[in-house]
Amino acid sequence: MVFPMLAWPAELHEDHFKLLDETRLPEETVYVHITNYHQAAQAIRDMKTRAFGQLLTVFYSLVLTARQTEDLPGTIQQACTELKTSRPTFAFSRYTDMVSGWVDQSASPETLVDLILDYLEKIKTMRLARAQAAADLFEDGDRVLTHCNTSGELLLTARICREQGKELRFYATETRPYFQGRLTAWEMSRDGFEITLIPDNRAAGLMAEGHVTKVITGSDRVARNGDIVNKIGTSQLARLARLNNIPFLVYVQEPGDTAEGRDIEIEHRPAEEVTCFRGDKIYPEGTAAFYPAFDLTPSEFVYKLITFGRVLTPAELPGGWDVKQ
Amino acid sequence: MVFPMLAWPAELHEDHFKLLDETRLPEETVYVHITNYHQAAQAIRDMKTRAFGQLLTVFYSLVLTARQTEDLPGTIQQACTELKTSRPTFAFSRYTDMVSGWVDQSASPETLVDLILDYLEKIKTMRLARAQAAADLFEDGDRVLTHCNTSGELLLTARICREQGKELRFYATETRPYFQGRLTAWEMSRDGFEITLIPDNRAAGLMAEGHVTKVITGSDRVARNGDIVNKIGTSQLARLARLNNIPFLVYVQEPGDTAEGRDIEIEHRPAEEVTCFRGDKIYPEGTAAFYPAFDLTPSEFVYKLITFGRVLTPAELPGGWDVKQ
Repeated sequence: MVFPMLAWPAELHEDHFKLLDETRLPEETVYVHITNYHQAAQAIRDMKTRAFGQLLTVFYSLVLTARQTEDLPGTIQQACTELKTSRPTFAFSRYTDMVSGWVDQSASPETLVDLILDYLEKIKTMRLARAQAAADLFEDGDRVLTHCNTSGELLLTARICREQGKELRFYATETRPYFQGRLTAWEMSRDGFEITLIPDNRAAGLMAEGHVTKVITGSDRVARNGDIVNKIGTSQLARLARLNNIPFLVYVQEPGDTAEGRDIEIEHRPAEEVTCFRGDKIYPEGTAAFYPAFDLTPSEFVYKLITFGRVLTPAELPGGWDVKQ
Repeated sequence: MVFPMLAWPAELHEDHFKLLDETRLPEETVYVHITNYHQAAQAIRDMKTRAFGQLLTVFYSLVLTARQTEDLPGTIQQACTELKTSRPTFAFSRYTDMVSGWVDQSASPETLVDLILDYLEKIKTMRLARAQAAADLFEDGDRVLTHCNTSGELLLTARICREQGKELRFYATETRPYFQGRLTAWEMSRDGFEITLIPDNRAAGLMAEGHVTKVITGSDRVARNGDIVNKIGTSQLARLARLNNIPFLVYVQEPGDTAEGRDIEIEHRPAEEVTCFRGDKIYPEGTAAFYPAFDLTPSEFVYKLITFGRVLTPAELPGGWDVKQ
């Protein structure tokens, strides 16, 4: 199955990679040309990409680094250090540590590149399996509320449902202050799915009036106890879903060693990202604003965690968590 | 006590009244010059004023009508019909019916004007009493989350608390899509109160992390059973406050004959009010959006109703409701 544009938002070439600039969507489809890891880290900090696109940016820039350097261990180490500290919440170090490990096993540049690209292929297969597992949770006629953007995975899920003859309708929150709901509304509607945008603060009414049968979001992090950390506003949807007895579903990745959600650092973005829109101030000078980019949803509000090919309830989580089949 | 600008956003003159254009705030303090009830109804439809400002607009335009007409009963009747249908959710007819009743008691234009202006003075006194009742509910150190804009009443309450030596801090939601939180941040901070703006979807995290000790909002309508209808997003704050055991307080007016919240018509505004910002489209052409301007908060989520000088819990509401002392 061809991956949706937002599900694989970068393209690797010999001496550079092209990264989809998600801040310009949906008005313009523009790619940033990236030739080294400094540019890659900057693109992540500027939120030109997000979620899975960040991982792709890290891996592709490490491929370029391996191809360019004379000192493989030293340069990869520097690149990993810069990349993993570009933003605090996403678990970059899990992946950069993995690559460092491969280098330590004295891999040649060619072997390292192969290991990275093989790993990305494996992720592709696992994400497809996750979308299929999600599709099995939906029924014909479901009205699905989502938040932010799931990096194309909800679209992948919706396509699988369509092949299975299940018709779904969607609601997307705007997701202030970055309006990532614009991406979701755009990618779903250009694929022919019916999707309606709502202000974030409309979710409670929408649920209470019976318009929503399921809520699904992505997650930037999951802990071993089933707590998730995702785009600000996810937590309220989970809590309101619980109040209304609506299943709250989450795409998750591997938890790594994170025991609980409160162990995850939450990134605080500059107040200007709330007080300005497209460079114009929309609030008076001096207005204080508080903008953590993510929030914590305790596992008690999560109904199902959708892993790579398997679905778990937080209650089913054992002392350990094994997402591998 | 001098009423805050947003608490009395119009000024009556002999042949016109000046209405504060709230859509231009806080960048500009601009008044609309209104000489007749057609212009008044249009200003309400265009949301140049809102909440209590709407009531003032209705009454002042009826004063002008009474002063201008040769046919008092006929013209007042026409004016009342146009004004009360300008927007659906606010209970305009309760007030226009009252004025019609005064005309039926064969009032002269002068008597009618006096009755209207006396009634407005009474409202002023009652609102001050309501702000005082609200102030009694706050304690030194409270961190208060609010939504939309309470037409200056929260500022009035905060000033009373300050006189009582109680120091409060405030959080204001942005209140998408009209960003009325801008008004709140502006009016509170110019009066020296510490206020921080948050995206609407940040409320759940803010409460869960212990930053909020009380939530207070206004209401456009209240029903006799304690259900309230207020700006979209109020309902989620009330539900989240309940989940976090935080008192949810509401300024209310008289319920009239409305038995339950579901008897109140909810206005649906054009999708463009979500998909455009200051005239620019921020979503792709053809994006569907759903924007009811208000939502219903069932009384089970309301902790205290603050009426004119009295505080009630919904459970205390008798079969009837008597807000008069």
